[in-house]
Amino acid sequence: MYFASDNAGPAHPKVMEALIAANEGYAMGYGADPIMDEVREQVRAVFEAPQAAVYLIINGTAANSVLLGTMAQPWQTIFCSSCAHIHEDECNAPEFYTGAKLTLVPAPDGKMTADDLRSKILGEENRGVHGPQRGPLSITQVTEKGTIYTLEELRALTATAQDFGMKAHLDGARFANALTALDCSPAEMSWKAGIDAVSFGGTKNGALGVEACVIFDPELAWEFELRRKRGGHLLSKHRYLSAQMQAYLADGLWLDLARAANARCVQLAEGLRKYSTAQILFEPQANMIFSEMPRREHKRMLDAGAVYYVMNGEPDTGDPDEQLIGRLVCDWSITSDHVSQFLDLLRG
Amino acid sequence: MYFASDNAGPAHPKVMEALIAANEGYAMGYGADPIMDEVREQVRAVFEAPQAAVYLIINGTAANSVLLGTMAQPWQTIFCSSCAHIHEDECNAPEFYTGAKLTLVPAPDGKMTADDLRSKILGEENRGVHGPQRGPLSITQVTEKGTIYTLEELRALTATAQDFGMKAHLDGARFANALTALDCSPAEMSWKAGIDAVSFGGTKNGALGVEACVIFDPELAWEFELRRKRGGHLLSKHRYLSAQMQAYLADGLWLDLARAANARCVQLAEGLRKYSTAQILFEPQANMIFSEMPRREHKRMLDAGAVYYVMNGEPDTGDPDEQLIGRLVCDWSITSDHVSQFLDLLRG
Amino acid sequence: MYFASDNAGPAHPKVMEALIAANEGYAMGYGADPIMDEVREQVRAVFEAPQAAVYLIINGTAANSVLLGTMAQPWQTIFCSSCAHIHEDECNAPEFYTGAKLTLVPAPDGKMTADDLRSKILGEENRGVHGPQRGPLSITQVTEKGTIYTLEELRALTATAQDFGMKAHLDGARFANALTALDCSPAEMSWKAGIDAVSFGGTKNGALGVEACVIFDPELAWEFELRRKRGGHLLSKHRYLSAQMQAYLADGLWLDLARAANARCVQLAEGLRKYSTAQILFEPQANMIFSEMPRREHKRMLDAGAVYYVMNGEPDTGDPDEQLIGRLVCDWSITSDHVSQFLDLLRG
Amino acid sequence: MYFASDNAGPAHPKVMEALIAANEGYAMGYGADPIMDEVREQVRAVFEAPQAAVYLIINGTAANSVLLGTMAQPWQTIFCSSCAHIHEDECNAPEFYTGAKLTLVPAPDGKMTADDLRSKILGEENRGVHGPQRGPLSITQVTEKGTIYTLEELRALTATAQDFGMKAHLDGARFANALTALDCSPAEMSWKAGIDAVSFGGTKNGALGVEACVIFDPELAWEFELRRKRGGHLLSKHRYLSAQMQAYLADGLWLDLARAANARCVQLAEGLRKYSTAQILFEPQANMIFSEMPRREHKRMLDAGAVYYVMNGEPDTGDPDEQLIGRLVCDWSITSDHVSQFLDLLRG
Repeated sequence: MYFASDNAGPAHPKVMEALIAANEGYAMGYGADPIMDEVREQVRAVFEAPQAAVYLIINGTAANSVLLGTMAQPWQTIFCSSCAHIHEDECNAPEFYTGAKLTLVPAPDGKMTADDLRSKILGEENRGVHGPQRGPLSITQVTEKGTIYTLEELRALTATAQDFGMKAHLDGARFANALTALDCSPAEMSWKAGIDAVSFGGTKNGALGVEACVIFDPELAWEFELRRKRGGHLLSKHRYLSAQMQAYLADGLWLDLARAANARCVQLAEGLRKYSTAQILFEPQANMIFSEMPRREHKRMLDAGAVYYVMNGEPDTGDPDEQLIGRLVCDWSITSDHVSQFLDLLRG
Repeated sequence: MYFASDNAGPAHPKVMEALIAANEGYAMGYGADPIMDEVREQVRAVFEAPQAAVYLIINGTAANSVLLGTMAQPWQTIFCSSCAHIHEDECNAPEFYTGAKLTLVPAPDGKMTADDLRSKILGEENRGVHGPQRGPLSITQVTEKGTIYTLEELRALTATAQDFGMKAHLDGARFANALTALDCSPAEMSWKAGIDAVSFGGTKNGALGVEACVIFDPELAWEFELRRKRGGHLLSKHRYLSAQMQAYLADGLWLDLARAANARCVQLAEGLRKYSTAQILFEPQANMIFSEMPRREHKRMLDAGAVYYVMNGEPDTGDPDEQLIGRLVCDWSITSDHVSQFLDLLRG
Repeated sequence: MYFASDNAGPAHPKVMEALIAANEGYAMGYGADPIMDEVREQVRAVFEAPQAAVYLIINGTAANSVLLGTMAQPWQTIFCSSCAHIHEDECNAPEFYTGAKLTLVPAPDGKMTADDLRSKILGEENRGVHGPQRGPLSITQVTEKGTIYTLEELRALTATAQDFGMKAHLDGARFANALTALDCSPAEMSWKAGIDAVSFGGTKNGALGVEACVIFDPELAWEFELRRKRGGHLLSKHRYLSAQMQAYLADGLWLDLARAANARCVQLAEGLRKYSTAQILFEPQANMIFSEMPRREHKRMLDAGAVYYVMNGEPDTGDPDEQLIGRLVCDWSITSDHVSQFLDLLRG
Repeated sequence: MYFASDNAGPAHPKVMEALIAANEGYAMGYGADPIMDEVREQVRAVFEAPQAAVYLIINGTAANSVLLGTMAQPWQTIFCSSCAHIHEDECNAPEFYTGAKLTLVPAPDGKMTADDLRSKILGEENRGVHGPQRGPLSITQVTEKGTIYTLEELRALTATAQDFGMKAHLDGARFANALTALDCSPAEMSWKAGIDAVSFGGTKNGALGVEACVIFDPELAWEFELRRKRGGHLLSKHRYLSAQMQAYLADGLWLDLARAANARCVQLAEGLRKYSTAQILFEPQANMIFSEMPRREHKRMLDAGAVYYVMNGEPDTGDPDEQLIGRLVCDWSITSDHVSQFLDLLRG
């Protein structure tokens, strides 16, 4: 009953096998390994983007930060949702790598609207040299609330950005979960929707730790490489990143894993809906559910061995009826039995 | 005949086995995995430093940069050798993480002397608020030229730093190679020699990619954690770093691997010395040899399948007699047969 | 009829005289001029703070940025109002000097409440190492909307900050205007109200360009000096800053000038209130009024030679009835006749 | 007998008069004052550069740092002499504004040679993404040793830089002193000699505190403006910068003042040469002399009221015969009598 995070589960066996296979003999370091040549072509094929620059990096914070560093100037502001991972969960890494600041667009359910974005853009920039200048837009897909932008919504956001000459970045830590939920192609969810660069997640969906940075404008490639190195994010024994991504993309493993995770989330949401004490807060569209229950119910579940985050339980008011929000995340390795076991426990 | 780098060889099988073993079930992320608790104690025991703060990070550039960020202020200058990795090979990462600058101390054979350090310190700081202030000293052990500071030399350097209130950092990317060559204890080569923090390398000596940052003053621990996170260097699935370091340290594997690498280097150096065309430039004391040969000889070797770096061969002057420097590095996986094969080839 | 800004008027003649007087003979540079010794004591006396560290700097953006750089860490977030000058009008200078980010507290009339501050603080920090850490609070007095915090309100804000171990900075670009309006002492409006450091403005109130940075904890003095120098803000011919501040503080000139400016603002507000077409938006408590009028009225005034900013007139909708906000600022040099002339024009 | 620095003397009366004249009525802030329009044309005319971007800033450290920030990338290294002001006397401001590092080219007499520059460039960059990349060249004219590059020497340096695609910056804190000594045109000593941007000094030569940043490629103008603002270096009451530069350039005042300073330096050097105890270290070509004398002689002069810096007198060895270097700087206001008085004293 482990629903704490999709980074708490194991790596998929095929990824581990690829790692073992890569551990033979000598290989040039720093991205010059032959597996990376394959990975580059795999990613380009997945995105139908034969010119894209493709790089690997160890985690989502680094992927977002180095990409945004390449896209933003230090006198700019980056537009993102008020609950964006780059704002709340990266300890100023985006600011460190860009020098820029962040402008927060309201997103009660995790999703910005084009209208809200437009009014924030207009609000931020009417001061000439005095104020921060308009920098890139960063969109998280799947959002931090477990919701998903439709392709139309994505296009509306990037079109708004383009009206002001702004580029668009996609934080795709859960790219696969969104893609399979929308049942569209990677190209449709990225460059065809106006996205200029993607943090393409692997870590949360079966890898040990690897993300691809996909930049559709190859002119930015060299700057990205320098910024990655300067951030200490160029791995010497790079083949172990390459091997993970190679296996992740081979034979659609990444899509299978995301579909599995999403399916468990559907199962879990259906169960929760039958349980009147739990209120689902946002429409769960991928692999993550936010559900409100009384403190006493959370306590009962956690004491019985369920593992998940209670978002607003501190400090402990002692009130057993207080409604607290639990976050339940399904990764690829959660089984239908795990979910059933959790729901059985919930029903008492 | 692969002598290009100690990051071009494979990870040791025991490290891979530990990785596989760690890939079971769920584990809390971000360093809260139970293996990390073991690793912390392993490292403290190795260093006889029960209070030390211990963190894992993916590579040496990151280890050096985050540690120096924790030790230096942005208005300071960091003293290091003129061929230090932090100066030549990290694309301004130390400057990025610290805001400080570097003052280069001469080191013809890779090693600074305490006298040269002292005169650089005195030369840098006599300008009050106008000039950069004295920041930490960073020492590389094994040096970038394959030489090793004796314990006396280390202590002379750190004592000089202490005379000016400066802390000392040890870049120990090849810590194990130096330690086994000196036949001393980790404590003797670190805090007992006046070192305040160590980048303790694993990557070049049998790991896939992991270094321990060891800070002997635990008061700096929280700042280090924040700086690591802000640099994008806190891994979510941290157990895969922990497992590497656990296996690396278990049963003295790290020492065995370093001894093996050093022994191959001795074998290689002895062979080279018998070959009059090759001139060894510095006394090889660990696992790295710099050897001068005519361009034609390098060409012959490389054409025959030997792999190593020729440091100063560009641009190609076309002069077959030109003396060029080859760098030959032995990692743990180089066998005696590899070395013999190389030497046989050399002898023609 | 020049109400554009309090940085558009001239310097006071006494300040110019002091500058001329200072231009005799030789003086040590970089703050070692004898006038600075006087200024330091003047400022300490004004603030009843004999231990305070006192430095001069050329403008408010620099004063705020270097002070906040000394008070904040790069992994923190600085709490300020959503319309703070440090957020809207300094082109990321505070972020540049601190590395930190800003958390915006709602302030519809320019003033944060302690409750809103508390809930932002609680909202920002419940993520351990993942999120930005709590940094200092920055309060603007007079606010950017022309309103003033009472001493009670100031103390409530700083007490809230102290509950979380946070320091407090006061952006006092219009310190004198607030002080004379509140009719309290500088100590009461600063350290007695829990403020740790003040940007004490001179530029907007009769100087050519000088602000004092007043730090009540002298332990931060040397770090401030280094950060000022590193920002390029230590003047070689420093006496010309010192002379301005000396004259500004001598014989209460600074208080007289602020009282004059505030009085003109009262006169202007009274006139506006009699004119039904103009709606004053916030309670003008110092030297600045925000007043709404139809676009046609603004046009008439500006065409007739009045000079002030219309905040939201772009793009021009062409609608003559559209309500637009004009900002009217009185500096020390505005006369009663200027105000009367403006009001006469308004009445047609 | 005040030879401490050319920033210790007063501003020229004509500059003060211009300041007073500028203090009439209202003027738009932030560089939109009408005097700045004149200054821009004055500077363009002086440099025969009708398209140049021209900005004012308060001091040389800021001028250098913001210009280099506009010219360099954070993964680069800036080439400068080992005694460059940007290296020794700006407390890491250039590193702060650029993120880059500095590569020091030997310059025993203050002047780099093109050969030394070339070998440093070749030495710094043969490591691809691993090492810092080649950034701009920064040349100081007059050098920190009081020597001057000939136009041929300047052109050789910038041609070397151009061979590697590098831009060139001129730190002209003493531009006027060099120009009048070389008897050439500003264009010849800047863009015609391959310089891309100039820190054009006023402060050391009769102003209170103003430097012009002259950028010959107007495409960099907007970035410069944003970087200046982000550094806190855009003055609100900008007219007081403009007025200084206006008077400085009017009727060749700047050239007259530099000629006067240089002439006093010639007089002083001639006197020193007659005094066998003093050894002039470098050929004084502008307004600055470095002269070695025994400690006892320095002590006698300083005790008698002469004011200048002894560069290497700390710590006091007590040896009266120890040779110490005195730096003697003549600013515009030093008179022939001052020099005679000093020389008389020297002769006893």
